[in-house]
Parts: sequence; structure tokens; C-alpha cells
Amino acid sequence: MDLQAHEERVVTAAVVLIGNELLSGRTQDVNLQVIAQRLNSVGVRLVEARVIADVESTIIETINTLRQQVDYLFTTGGIGPTHDDITSASIAKAFGRPFLRHPEAERRLTAYFEQRGVDANSPSMRMADMPDGVTLIDNPVSVAPGYQIDNVFVMAGVPAIMQAMIENVLPMLQGGKLVHSETVVCDLTEGKVATGLANIQARYLELDIGSYPGRSGRAYRVALVIRGTDQDKIAAAAEEIRGLVTSLSGTLLAE
Amino acid sequence: MDLQAHEERVVTAAVVLIGNELLSGRTQDVNLQVIAQRLNSVGVRLVEARVIADVESTIIETINTLRQQVDYLFTTGGIGPTHDDITSASIAKAFGRPFLRHPEAERRLTAYFEQRGVDANSPSMRMADMPDGVTLIDNPVSVAPGYQIDNVFVMAGVPAIMQAMIENVLPMLQGGKLVHSETVVCDLTEGKVATGLANIQARYLELDIGSYPGRSGRAYRVALVIRGTDQDKIAAAAEEIRGLVTSLSGTLLAE
Repeated sequence: MDLQAHEERVVTAAVVLIGNELLSGRTQDVNLQVIAQRLNSVGVRLVEARVIADVESTIIETINTLRQQVDYLFTTGGIGPTHDDITSASIAKAFGRPFLRHPEAERRLTAYFEQRGVDANSPSMRMADMPDGVTLIDNPVSVAPGYQIDNVFVMAGVPAIMQAMIENVLPMLQGGKLVHSETVVCDLTEGKVATGLANIQARYLELDIGSYPGRSGRAYRVALVIRGTDQDKIAAAAEEIRGLVTSLSGTLLAE
Repeated sequence: MDLQAHEERVVTAAVVLIGNELLSGRTQDVNLQVIAQRLNSVGVRLVEARVIADVESTIIETINTLRQQVDYLFTTGGIGPTHDDITSASIAKAFGRPFLRHPEAERRLTAYFEQRGVDANSPSMRMADMPDGVTLIDNPVSVAPGYQIDNVFVMAGVPAIMQAMIENVLPMLQGGKLVHSETVVCDLTEGKVATGLANIQARYLELDIGSYPGRSGRAYRVALVIRGTDQDKIAAAAEEIRGLVTSLSGTLLAE
């Protein structure tokens, strides 16, 4: 067993998706998968996500619980200009910090609104109100910034804006070892591969082997996914899994 | 203010999506939205969702926390036949109950496997191992049942199977008042409608008014969504919001 692999520092993250529309079923979230994939690319592992309502006490409690459990916490949603956007005021309370107009955010919004002939007293200026002492996250899509407060990164919920913000967040993170993966796809049932797969998993404890049944058109298929930080071990386990499939008279399929 | 509306019993639910593939970004969840919508249809309100890894201690802690906070708790994922399917064994531990082969689940799986010429000693029989004393949830897609244990409903993660199971779960629930909604779509910015919308929300405290910006092609639009149990009040608030849009020289758009 590779003790070094077991002892390596794993950098962890959690995500809080804030918004009644996700819990009412009105909106299909598409942010979680993007955040997970982008964090992977810099060696940060998502360990939990929560979807919560636009309720101050819930936001405060969730943020204060999770920010102590992980290295980085990311939120999406609730930082717009309308009455239901209560994320920032709630986060200020969670941190026990004043909730103030951020001068640089105000400057950016004012310049943007002047260009567009919008009154600078517009309720949209609420988007410059933030907890005291934050670092801005640039928003190249619609200007109103997100921000970092300690290990918490507060981002927009609109997917195009969130996607732009997460790219600006990645350079602010200190990741650990990169997690790599390899996928073996075959036409065997999970029941057929289960015993052999468990044996392989038991010999590669530093890897995470998952089995995901699915369909390609009408044909059944199962994707066997090997994840871990050691690419040589991943390749060796994948080779063993391909051998298992062949020994059970299964057919290897394209991913 | 309608005190009766405020005092009515709200029936709550939470969802736990269990699976490393959701946290690695490999898989886009599509179950949460379906569950939310189907629960709405019987007067059960989703108040929180969590996405967690296939880790026993995490599953136990999450289940035991949430099942005390809501009327109904739903899980998806981790009830297949492979080594990474640890949901059922974890839930047995969460409830402090024996983890046993369920006779009726075993009978169904045996009949299904015999039909297909699968060995009854197949690891697939693991799918009949459940906490003691559960009520089965029928699975018309692939036979292996889900189950109810107290207020927790354990379902498959594969979307087609989950969708079949939730339909079989709905008649087992006691819902509260139905939540209705109406949506007003217009071409104004959120900043423009924010003050008027907040005033309307302040006069309809029993309703939940949300503002969701988006695009239709290249054109900006905002959806103003009114939700609540009192359809007359929803209609009245929607009428006020349409009046607000018109008074601000906005155009009402089709939903």
C-alpha cells in the first residue's frame, strides 16, 4: 500500500446552491457539475453540496457549518438587486461583519450604469453592498462582482455569470494533487462484474472505483470509473478491469 | 394578513443525493428537479437537498440529521449490487437496525433472475439486503425495490428507475395544502422592477415572490414568480406585478 498517497494532503471544498427556484423544481441546477469539474482541474475535491432556500437563518447556519469543515466553500445565487436576494446580508451576519457598500464594486457598477443611462440610485446599486473586508471576484459578463470572504467564495447563480466567476476564482485557490480518472465501459451487468470489481478495489485502496449502469440507445452498458491521484495505479487497475471483463466474456465498448 | 394561511401545517421534505459521481462532476444530477416537482403535486415542500459521497459515516450522519428536521426524507443512489453501493448498509446503521435479506425482495429478484438465466447466488442478490422492518417501494423498471423506513424513502439513482419509484411513493405521503404559482415575464431589468416588486412582496407576506433574470435568445428577460397556497392572492399579486411592469413602460412577454 502506498502510504504516501494515503497521507497526502487532500484539499476539500463544499458548494451551497442558494435559491427557492432550485427547491421548487422551477429551475434545473447546472452550476454544481461545472464547479466540480473546474475544482478538479486545480486539485480541489468537492466533498459535499447543499441546496438551500432564500432564508436568512438557513443561509447563516449552513455557511457557518460548512466553512469550518472544508478548505474552500462556494456559494451560488442570491446576489442580485431584488428583495429576494439576501445572500450577501446573510453572509455578513454569518461572519459577524458590517454590511457595507463596497467602494470598488460601487465604482464599477456606477460606471456601467452611467454608460447605459441607468440612474445611479437604482436598486441595482444594492449589488455593491457586501460584508466588510471582502476581495472582489470579477464579473466580465454583467459587472456586479462576486467576492471572497475568508475561505468562502460568493458567486452569482446565473450560469453564464457563475462560469465566468469560477474561472477568476481558480487562480485564488491552492489545490492539492490532481485527481485523474479512467473509464472502462462494457456490456456486462453490474451483477456479473461485482465480485471481481470488489476484489480489484480491495487491492487498490488508494483508488476510488465506481460502477455506473446506463444505456446507450436500447443497449445496456456499465461504466466502471477509476479515480485517484496516481496515474500509474489507475492505468494498472484499468488494465485489470479490462481483463476481468474479457474473462467474463464481456465486450469492451467505447466510452 | 391571513393568519390561517400562516398557521397552516406545512409538510416538509429533504432529499439526499448519494454518489461520488455527482461530486466529481462526472454526472449531471437530474433527479432533484423531478422529486421537487412531484412532491409539489401532492403538497409536500422540499426545503433542503444535500449531495454527499459514498462514505458510510457521511451517509449515517446526514440521514440522522435530516430525518429529524423534516416530515419526509428521500435518498437516491447507492442501492445497486456493486461494492460502492453502501447506502442500504449505512441506513441500517443509521437506524440501529439489523441489515438482513428481505424475503419479498429476494423472491422478486430470484424470479426475475431465473427468467433471465442469472445465477441466484449472483452478487445482484445484495439488492435484497435491507434494514429490518422496511416497506418495499416497487420498481417496475428493473425489479430491485427501494424501500421506506420510518419517514425515509430510499430510491435508486438511475433516473428512469427513480422516476418510476417516486410515482409509487407519492400515494404513501400525506401532503399539506398545494402550492400554486404564477409567472409574469417582462423585458425590464431587475433593477427597474426591484423597488415596486419589494413593495408588492411586503403586502403579500403569505406569498413568495422571486425574480429570475435570464435570456431568450439574445434578448434579456426577467421571470417574476409568485408562489403560495392561496390562488386568489396569487392572482391578485400577479395582476399588481403586471401593472407595475406596464407603469414602468415594460413589455409583458409570453412565459
